[in-house]
Parts: sequence; structure tokens; C-alpha cells
Amino acid sequence: MLNRLRELALEKSPFCAGIDLKTDQVPAFMREAATSETSAMLEYGKLCIDVVFPYAAAIKFQIACYEAYGLEGMRVYSELIQYAKSKGAVVMGDIKRGDIGSTAEMYARAHLSGDFEVDIVTLSPFMGEDAISPYYPYFGKGEKAAFLLAKTSNPSSVDFQDKNVEGAKLYDVILDKILEWKNKLSAGGDYTPLGAVVAVNAASDIEALREKCKDLFLLVPGYGAQGARLEDLRTLLSKYKNGVVNVSRGYTAGLSECKDMEELKSALEERAAKLAQELRAVYE
Amino acid sequence: MLNRLRELALEKSPFCAGIDLKTDQVPAFMREAATSETSAMLEYGKLCIDVVFPYAAAIKFQIACYEAYGLEGMRVYSELIQYAKSKGAVVMGDIKRGDIGSTAEMYARAHLSGDFEVDIVTLSPFMGEDAISPYYPYFGKGEKAAFLLAKTSNPSSVDFQDKNVEGAKLYDVILDKILEWKNKLSAGGDYTPLGAVVAVNAASDIEALREKCKDLFLLVPGYGAQGARLEDLRTLLSKYKNGVVNVSRGYTAGLSECKDMEELKSALEERAAKLAQELRAVYE
Repeated sequence: MLNRLRELALEKSPFCAGIDLKTDQVPAFMREAATSETSAMLEYGKLCIDVVFPYAAAIKFQIACYEAYGLEGMRVYSELIQYAKSKGAVVMGDIKRGDIGSTAEMYARAHLSGDFEVDIVTLSPFMGEDAISPYYPYFGKGEKAAFLLAKTSNPSSVDFQDKNVEGAKLYDVILDKILEWKNKLSAGGDYTPLGAVVAVNAASDIEALREKCKDLFLLVPGYGAQGARLEDLRTLLSKYKNGVVNVSRGYTAGLSECKDMEELKSALEERAAKLAQELRAVYE
Repeated sequence: MLNRLRELALEKSPFCAGIDLKTDQVPAFMREAATSETSAMLEYGKLCIDVVFPYAAAIKFQIACYEAYGLEGMRVYSELIQYAKSKGAVVMGDIKRGDIGSTAEMYARAHLSGDFEVDIVTLSPFMGEDAISPYYPYFGKGEKAAFLLAKTSNPSSVDFQDKNVEGAKLYDVILDKILEWKNKLSAGGDYTPLGAVVAVNAASDIEALREKCKDLFLLVPGYGAQGARLEDLRTLLSKYKNGVVNVSRGYTAGLSECKDMEELKSALEERAAKLAQELRAVYE
């Protein structure tokens, strides 16, 4: 699935569209026409998917945004996944689950089959390989994959991830493990089934990170609201073209003032086209 | 809430009852009488809660077991939480969520209010304090709390948690941070609102861990199926009486052969009484 994702990144753009909605982001005209806040969210989400599909390599849903609205929110999450899949999109569930043994088996079943089935999940490797190995049986012949958290972009990521561990940063140790696990599962030159979530900021040693990650496919958060700069993304990705860049709020938020469907569609279309163009430049 | 949990541990027992069901654990007579697998799970869950309530300091739900059954599973999760709360139990959601900023805000809203509202959540601190601080507004006057993962019991926990970080084990560094964050939030001598998830096994230096954790309330997994021994639990907890011990499968699993309600109830009752008695001895 990560090989396929790379093809789509080259073909469309390395834009991963994050559909991470909050009910107050939905334009008032849609909320007024809907029977509930969550059904308005569902309609807005479908529109966001329709517009972005031709531009984006993948569509990612941050499950927290839907969990926050309880059972109805989870229904919207499930329906948006189905909808994006029915269009032929590569669909990611940003679930960052991290638990062990029989619990991880249940999470794998939850998110790689059934109502919440996606193509790719994000996972937290903090508990070690047995938090990840229960997902292996679902990876099968490359249909499913996972991005494992290695280096995040939040200020307090330094609390642990930047600590020195036996002469290296903790995130370096984690990247080594991800490579080791991936190489057990797939042939050389193959990106699937395990990639890494890697954020960059101005302070990062991006060249070193790039070389460290050259055999991994990356999910890079932080462009837009979280502050990653295009030049840093280019330094990280242009050489090996081995990642997608997520943008969520920069695509879906801030449009709640749109007056009607025509205005909303054209605003989304403009953003999707612009983000795809900017992010295509990251591969150049 | 962790002060209250300690009172209950002293009064009833330090037994935290994990209601982590799988549909195939439900006795056949209950499955046959139910309209669906998940409604059988709900009935069995309610019975497990009814029987264990007088014996256990808290009731913990592993959300993965319910997520695995999709939307219907999440409905069961929500209903079991409501049911346990309606009896007056301290209710924990074992969610181990770990994400940052606006995402953590959404998870906090999801699990400390609304359909999935519990008293105490488990969280992963791997991304640093800004994965935890969005929960702080919900802690209020002690009504809510969180246990943060520090040291887990799975074999591959050594992949990262046991690494040497600037002269200490990573889990020691994490425990220091948890203490620091807790002390910002509460007065001295107060356990709430942040505790730690700490597992022990025969290889641990349990005395050192005990002293390190003396000002934290602990959630200790691993008794029963995961292999923690009573003598190790006593070494960890008898001195400061500052933790509860979770047992899940040892209470709810392996009873699928029970023939009728009478047999099932008496088997659950026997287990609950025995576990409470064994775990009371851990405080002695």
C-alpha cells in the first residue's frame, strides 16, 4: 500500500488531505439544512472529499475529531471512510493506537476490518514491537500498511523523543527499529508495509534525518497550522520522493462564513489546487 | 479521583476489575438468548459488573475490545460505562490515547464528557506534556484523573522503555516527568490527578521502583494472564498502599462453558471474592 501511495504522490501530488472536522467549521448554511450537527459534519466531509480527491495522494481522518462527538461521531467517521473508499481513494485512519498483545489484536481488527476499516493506520510504537506485530497478519500482500510515530512536531516532543539514548536521539533509535521490523516483512526496495511519521522544523538536522529515512516512506505532519516550511519539506523529500505531507486545517477550516454551496465548493477547489501545486514543488 | 480510588482500595480491595470482553467469552446460553453477539456481550458485561462491584475498587474497560466490534461495539462500551457509573463505581477507560494539541483536546472531550465519559483515563505520554495538558481542564476539583503509561509488562517494552537515557532508564525519566506535572497540578500529599501505569516482573528492581513512585498512585497491570506474581505486587505496594492491580481475563474469561445463569453467577462470585482476597494481601 505504501508503494501504491508513492505512485499516487508522483502522479497527483504528495498532498495528504486531512479531513479532521469540528462541527463549528461547517458553514452555517449547511448546518441549518441538516437534521443534526453530526449530519452537517458528514455532508461537509463528503464535499471536502469530492473536491480534494483528484488532487491528493491520500485522504486521512483524525479519529479523535469524530470520537469527540460520541457514538454519532463514530458513525460519521465510519461513513466518511466508506465514502472515500468508494471513490477509490487511499484512506488513512490517524488513530495512533499503542497497546500490546491481545489488546493490539483487537485494535488491528477494529481498524483494518469492519466498520472502521482503512488502508493505512498510524500507530504508536512506544511499547515496542509487540504493540505493532499484531497488525502484521493484516498487511497480507501489501493491501494494508502502518505509519509508526517516530518524531512529532509539538514543542514538548523534546520531553522524550529528543533525549540521548546510548549516543543517539530516541527518535533515531525508533527509526532504526522501524527499519528493522519493515525489513523483516518486505523485500529490499519495497516501502511497504511500515513507514514512519516524521515531523521537521527549522531546528531539525533535516539532511541527517533524510538519509536515515531513505528506505522508509514518510507521513509528514505540520505543514500549515503546525508550522513546517516548504523549504524544509523540500530538503526532507525532494531527493528520494519518499513521503506525503499532511494538511488538515489549511484545507478544511476557516470556511464557515461561506454563504452557499457554490462559494464553498470554489473555495475548497482553490485551496486543494494550491496545496497540491505547492506540495508538488516539494518533490522537485 | 485518585484519592477516592485509594480510599476504595483500602475499604474494598486494591482489585481493579477489567471488563475486557470478547464475544466468544460469553457463555453459549447467553448468546443464544440474545438478538446479536454484541447484545450478548452487553448482558454478560452487566452481569460481570453486578457481581464484582462490592469487591473491586474500580472497574476498567479496555476500549479496544469494543472498538473491535465497530459501531455496535462502541455502543456496548458506552452502555457498560453508564451502567457501572449508575451503580456508583469508579470507572476507568483504558484508552491509552496519545496525541497532541488540538487532537488531544478532542480525545479529552471524547472520553471525559459525552457518550464515553469515564472518571479516569489511561494515556500515553510519549509525545510529551502537550499530549497530556489538554486533559487538565477536565480534572477540575479532582473529579477526573489520568494514569500515564510509564513501564509496561510486555516483553518488547525493553525496545525503548528500558533504554538508558542520560544515565537513567527511559521509564525513570518518564516517571520524573509525571511527578513534575502532577506536582504542578495538586498540593503535596495528594495523589490526584495524575498517576502512572507501572508493571513489574521478576526481573524488575521493584524496591527502587517503589521508592521512585511513592508519591504517585499506580495502576498495575499484569496479574494473572500477564504473569505478575503476588509477592512482587506486595513488594511494590504494601509499604505505601498506593495502587490498584488490574485483572481482566482472570475474572471474565474461561467461563463460556457455564450452562446457566446460576452456575455463571456463582463462578463469577467465587472469582471476584478470591481475587479481592488475594489482592487485599498485597497491602499487608
